[in-house]
Amino acid sequence: MKPYVIGIDMGGTNTVFGIVDARGAVIASSSIKTGKHAKFADYVDELYAEITKLIEQNDAVDKIHGIGIGAPNANYYTGEIADGVNLPWPTPIPLVEEFRNKFGVPVTATNDANAAAIGEMTYGAARGLKDFIMITLGTGVGSGIVINGQVVYGHDGFAGELGHVIMKRNNGRLCGCGRTGCLEAYCSANGVARTAREFLETRNEPSLLRNMDIEDITSKDVYDAATAGDALAKEIFDYTGNILGQALADMTVFSSPEAFILFGGLAKSGELLMRPLRESMNRNMMAIFKGKPKVLLSELKEADAAILGASALGWEAK
Amino acid sequence: MKPYVIGIDMGGTNTVFGIVDARGAVIASSSIKTGKHAKFADYVDELYAEITKLIEQNDAVDKIHGIGIGAPNANYYTGEIADGVNLPWPTPIPLVEEFRNKFGVPVTATNDANAAAIGEMTYGAARGLKDFIMITLGTGVGSGIVINGQVVYGHDGFAGELGHVIMKRNNGRLCGCGRTGCLEAYCSANGVARTAREFLETRNEPSLLRNMDIEDITSKDVYDAATAGDALAKEIFDYTGNILGQALADMTVFSSPEAFILFGGLAKSGELLMRPLRESMNRNMMAIFKGKPKVLLSELKEADAAILGASALGWEAK
Repeated sequence: MKPYVIGIDMGGTNTVFGIVDARGAVIASSSIKTGKHAKFADYVDELYAEITKLIEQNDAVDKIHGIGIGAPNANYYTGEIADGVNLPWPTPIPLVEEFRNKFGVPVTATNDANAAAIGEMTYGAARGLKDFIMITLGTGVGSGIVINGQVVYGHDGFAGELGHVIMKRNNGRLCGCGRTGCLEAYCSANGVARTAREFLETRNEPSLLRNMDIEDITSKDVYDAATAGDALAKEIFDYTGNILGQALADMTVFSSPEAFILFGGLAKSGELLMRPLRESMNRNMMAIFKGKPKVLLSELKEADAAILGASALGWEAK
Repeated sequence: MKPYVIGIDMGGTNTVFGIVDARGAVIASSSIKTGKHAKFADYVDELYAEITKLIEQNDAVDKIHGIGIGAPNANYYTGEIADGVNLPWPTPIPLVEEFRNKFGVPVTATNDANAAAIGEMTYGAARGLKDFIMITLGTGVGSGIVINGQVVYGHDGFAGELGHVIMKRNNGRLCGCGRTGCLEAYCSANGVARTAREFLETRNEPSLLRNMDIEDITSKDVYDAATAGDALAKEIFDYTGNILGQALADMTVFSSPEAFILFGGLAKSGELLMRPLRESMNRNMMAIFKGKPKVLLSELKEADAAILGASALGWEAK
């Protein structure tokens, strides 16, 4: 088997990619802007040029086993990017086909959260775990479910949309998916910012957050205020952790995972999020599962995580 | 391989058992009362005597490959019956160990809903399906989840408790599990009876159900009244189907099953339940999954279903 794989993480803003060896060392990496090209073929052309350059610079010509791609709504079975993503090209996008034609090596794709789960299982906090659920707390909430050591793709390749379980059946917030009350509308970075706006508008307590334009508040601002001791900001994290704990307790009755692995910007909020999360999870957990599932943080280095997750998929590319 | 297996379905009231061949034909079957013996060992003794009789009567001596048992809270990994079940013996019960010692053949056990899922996959409505969820609508709500052709047991063997996802986070009904708002508190036979009592007490419409003692009303009474055209009784099924549809839509984002298979007494309510269920499921379904998962009814003959499900497990007994 050839010694390297290429991992590509296609985000809404940047596409990062790298050459990875069998032990998970990122030999070299780089990135391009995802939205620069009006045509998907031009985007693939630029990526091809940049990746080829990286391969030549690192003495990796003819040493690439395959390419793994993590991309929003990418389907493991069809190799296409499905509708409903914030990308500048018409969907479905024949992702795997175009890359395979261009690069002439095996290519496999899945969505970014599944890629992260595979990366965590291969190189990170989930090494040795056969049953775990990866929850990505970023702009939205994504998930990658692993059961019996295998990623759950479901009948159609779209399984694992746990950001869209309904947490509020009445008067829930509008979600990007068009429904209301989804986990993502509360426990994502955007959800935290929405909670901040809701609390500031409906309550009277003083808060450092009142010094800001309410429409510009981000989850980072809430984090900074909470770290500075702001009581309202801390309560926003309590509210977020409480709902996330309810959700993880519900997920547990489904697949009884050994651990949940949290990943993404919001997961780095430390005890501000983790304390209310653990308390809520324990309070809401069915007795038979109480105290069992661990909540772990991703162990992948931020800069490499996306590339590693995608690259792990490259080893099984056909 | 020997030509027969024994399937044992251990219910709270009756334990039914039978000799099954490789094509799923029940050669012979019988039953005993589960709760007759104060000691578990005496129960096993009686079962041994009865099953031995059945084996001798049917020329099956030395032709038994193994025994499969479906029992409440039985754990596939440990072979024990865990706490929280309505049985007359102290838990955990070393189910597999005792049967293996007594019968001298390989024995495997799992909970009754998982056994039903295996039976359905081997002989019933789920033949050829690799991703489906079995929902048993009986006194309670049980589930057996199949992903990639394998039953999901989870890290500890207790996965698939989908009767205990939370459907009402505020002011939900008390569930037998000690928490409130579980699916089982609404969409089981008991749940339907509770809905009937709630509707009768809080509303004023006339109903055939008002002719009965409110505490004695069963889901069968509600079914009979609805079939006779009673509007309130029909509305009880609408309410039940609506919540079940919400639950199935939520389960879909987890494992994206090809089908849900409904099993148990309440599943035989026909369009009274199925129409509101389908409508609710479609209304609550995330766009990417809309119209995809089928809702099917179990195809196993009522009398044989439990034995068949358990027996299918007997083939893999070790």
